[in-house]
Amino acid sequence: MSADDTQSKKASRWAVAAGGGLPSLGEIGLNQFAPYLLNRVTARWNANVSEDLKSFEMTTTNMRVLAVLSVMPTLTINELSVYAVTEQSTTSRTLDAMEEQGWVRRQPRSDDMRIRDVSITEEGRAALARIWSPIYDRFEQLFDGIDDDDYTRFVATLHRMLQNVRKHEL
Amino acid sequence: MSADDTQSKKASRWAVAAGGGLPSLGEIGLNQFAPYLLNRVTARWNANVSEDLKSFEMTTTNMRVLAVLSVMPTLTINELSVYAVTEQSTTSRTLDAMEEQGWVRRQPRSDDMRIRDVSITEEGRAALARIWSPIYDRFEQLFDGIDDDDYTRFVATLHRMLQNVRKHEL
Repeated sequence: MSADDTQSKKASRWAVAAGGGLPSLGEIGLNQFAPYLLNRVTARWNANVSEDLKSFEMTTTNMRVLAVLSVMPTLTINELSVYAVTEQSTTSRTLDAMEEQGWVRRQPRSDDMRIRDVSITEEGRAALARIWSPIYDRFEQLFDGIDDDDYTRFVATLHRMLQNVRKHEL
Repeated sequence: MSADDTQSKKASRWAVAAGGGLPSLGEIGLNQFAPYLLNRVTARWNANVSEDLKSFEMTTTNMRVLAVLSVMPTLTINELSVYAVTEQSTTSRTLDAMEEQGWVRRQPRSDDMRIRDVSITEEGRAALARIWSPIYDRFEQLFDGIDDDDYTRFVATLHRMLQNVRKHEL
């Protein structure tokens, strides 16, 4: 896409401003500014999930680590911190506690002992199974009234956005 | 919508599982599970914006408060904390600092002196104008390659999601 195309796309998106400068937030409208809506929705989802997890004595990071490991054979701490959207230092401390709890195991990789591969244990899968029903209910609540086609498009847009901004090839 | 309709919508969304129980995350697929993608994208957006703001000696909460106040005449601290997706105590501390900086003013409401209405000052508008260009560029980068129709549908889905989960009527 040429710079001109990009310019015309921008211009069409918000019937741009007198003066030809950038459209202001007032011109776009707060409720049409997707990053604002993303933050509102994501913060509310996270707060609700965190609340649900309390009665299971599990943190959001615990849940994310278990969920990601339940669908990937093994991951390094670095990979886990990207997928779990958690700082590496927090991920590392969380894994210490989760290993003590018996939910994950860490094994040095045979061809490079500096790397430790993290995987989920049977107890970890059982812990995840216990919390999955309330999380899944939350998920259904979040997308209530949104049909399959809109869900599919929504996810496709998120994939493109992640490609546009991510730093890691994960 | 009846409970039966909801059930059939769930069933159609992920061609549900042997056994007829809830689809697991493995069955849905991590990359089709929107809350995961929302967290990935939103965390990256926030980290990028926070990085951009550093050179302007502004925090993300500062920016959100200024942005929201730039499009609303006045707001209470409670309303601001919802719109700025920031804990009320943090919002309150942030406003102290922002008032000192001359970016906002707080005035007791004439008919109820317990309520203080927060508004943006001219200096506040100038500070927001200085950071808007890099933030707007980030926004264009985030939605690069996403056409107007998909943007509109994306925003509409976010509105519906916010209705489904929000606690405040804001």
